[in-house]
Amino acid sequence: MKLLRYGEIGHEKPGLLDHDGKIRDISGVLSGDLGGDNLSPATLARLAGTPVDSLPVVNGSPRIGACVARPCNFIAVGLNYADHAAESNLPVPKEPILFNKAPNCIVGPYDTVVLPRGSEKSDWEVEIAIVIGSRTSYITESEVPAHVAGYCVCNDVSEREYQIERGGQWMKGKGCATFGPLGPWLVTADEIPDVGKLGMWLDVNGQRCQTGNTDTMIFNVAKIVSYISHFMVLEPGDVITTGTPPGVGMGMKPPKFLKPGDVMELGIEGLGSQKQPVVAWSKAAA
Amino acid sequence: MKLLRYGEIGHEKPGLLDHDGKIRDISGVLSGDLGGDNLSPATLARLAGTPVDSLPVVNGSPRIGACVARPCNFIAVGLNYADHAAESNLPVPKEPILFNKAPNCIVGPYDTVVLPRGSEKSDWEVEIAIVIGSRTSYITESEVPAHVAGYCVCNDVSEREYQIERGGQWMKGKGCATFGPLGPWLVTADEIPDVGKLGMWLDVNGQRCQTGNTDTMIFNVAKIVSYISHFMVLEPGDVITTGTPPGVGMGMKPPKFLKPGDVMELGIEGLGSQKQPVVAWSKAAA
Repeated sequence: MKLLRYGEIGHEKPGLLDHDGKIRDISGVLSGDLGGDNLSPATLARLAGTPVDSLPVVNGSPRIGACVARPCNFIAVGLNYADHAAESNLPVPKEPILFNKAPNCIVGPYDTVVLPRGSEKSDWEVEIAIVIGSRTSYITESEVPAHVAGYCVCNDVSEREYQIERGGQWMKGKGCATFGPLGPWLVTADEIPDVGKLGMWLDVNGQRCQTGNTDTMIFNVAKIVSYISHFMVLEPGDVITTGTPPGVGMGMKPPKFLKPGDVMELGIEGLGSQKQPVVAWSKAAA
Repeated sequence: MKLLRYGEIGHEKPGLLDHDGKIRDISGVLSGDLGGDNLSPATLARLAGTPVDSLPVVNGSPRIGACVARPCNFIAVGLNYADHAAESNLPVPKEPILFNKAPNCIVGPYDTVVLPRGSEKSDWEVEIAIVIGSRTSYITESEVPAHVAGYCVCNDVSEREYQIERGGQWMKGKGCATFGPLGPWLVTADEIPDVGKLGMWLDVNGQRCQTGNTDTMIFNVAKIVSYISHFMVLEPGDVITTGTPPGVGMGMKPPKFLKPGDVMELGIEGLGSQKQPVVAWSKAAA
C-alpha cells in the first residue's frame, strides 16, 4: 500500500493512493492519524484487507502532508554510503553514526523549505527513511522486518555551518523548521521487494546533483534498526532516515548551497518523488 | 504552583501540590494532560486563579509520574558548568553544546533506572530543566521569560561508553529507556525568584557525589532558550535540561559507575528531590 496524509497543515487526514493514482479516504478505517499504533502490523493488515473500491475517493488536489504524523523519535544515520564517504575523504564509520532531527521539522513533500535566518550553508540530502510499526528494543537483525511498517523519501535538509562549525553535536543544523520533508507516500514494506537495491536521485533547479543506490549503504536497514534498538526504545511511527549518497552541496568544489528561489526535486525508486521551493526566512514564512 | 502528574505509567493525571503537601486533582480544570498547550501562560493563569480548596484532594499515595507529558523535543546542554568543565580538564565551550535525549526515556522521579543490557558505564547528572510554555523561535534573551512555563529536576542519566566511545554523536548514551527522570514537580517560574542561584546535589547510596549551584552555569537560562530557538522551533511542553555541576562518576579517580542495587537521590533548591533505585536490564525491567 501507498499510504499518505492529505489536507492543510495540522489538519491532515489519512489516505491511500489507489491503482489509478486517486487518493482514497481511509479515516473511516483508521481511528486517528497515520502514525503510532495505526502503523502496527494488525492495523496495516486490516487496512490491506479493506476493498479499495469501498473507500471514498478524495476529490480535487489537496495538499499532501508528511506521510506520517509527528513521531516521538526522528533519528538519522550519518555518513552511511560508501561512495559518499569516499567523496568526503572520510573513513568508513565502524558503527552507525546517529543523530537526531527535531520531530517538528517534518513537513510535506511539496512544502516550502525555509532557509534559517542568516543561513548561508543549507544543503540537500536525498535519503530513504524507515518507518517503525511497533514498539521494540534490543532486537536482532532477523527480528527487524516484523517491526518495520514501511519506507518513504526524506530530504534530510542540513545547515552545514550550524551542524559543523557551531561547536559540539550535529543536531544544531538538522532540526531547523521545514528541514524534514517526508513522503509523498509511506510505502508498506511488502511493496518493496529489495530495499537494498533502490535507485535515488536529487536535482537542484533541474540539474542532477545526487545519483545513488541503496546498494552502496554501509549499514543496511536491518543492521540500522537493530543497532538503534540497543540504545533506545523505538516507538511505532518513529522515523529513521538512513544517510545520503554522493552529491551534496558541501562536497562540491567549490561548495554550493541553497539560495532563495532554488527548487529541489528528489526521488527514490518505488517511493515516489518530492519537490520543494526554497525561500528566505521571514516572519511570514516561519 | 507546583504541578505534577500522578498515577500508573501511561495513565497519569494532572495534579497540584497544595500548601499542606497534599495532591489536588486538576483534571477538572485542564482538558488533557500536563503538557503542550496546557502549559501556556493563559492556562497557567486560569489554574492559578482557581481556589485550591475547590480542587479535590487525591487520597492515598499514588505513584508520581514525570511532571510533564512526553514532549516533542527533549534537548540537553552539555558541559555548561564552569567548575565541571575545569574538573573535566575541558575548555569552556564558546557556544552551548546541544544534544538530544529521546523523549520516551522520560520516567517519574522515583521510578527505577534500568542499566542498559551489558552497560558498564552508566552515570548520573543532576540538572535543572526548563519547561517551555508556548511555541516560539528566534527569540531574544529578554523574550525568554514569556515562553518559560517553569522548572524541574532532571537526572540526565548517561552511558559514557555509548556516549563517547561508540562513534559519532552523544545521543547514543543519552536516550536509553528510563534515562530521563523528571520531577517531582513542575514549579512555575513565578515561584523561583532567581533561577541563577539554586543549590543542587546528588547522592549515590547516601554518599554525596555532586554539589553545585546554578550560579556557576556558563550559559544561563535566558541565553540557552534564546540560543536553541535560533536552531529549531520550541514547542509548548518541550524540555531543556541545562547541564550538570561537578561530581559525575566519569570524573572520579578512578571513575565510578552505577551498578545494580545502587540508589540515586538528587535535588534542587525549591524544586524538590528525586530517588531512583538502579537495576540491571532484564526483559521484566524493560
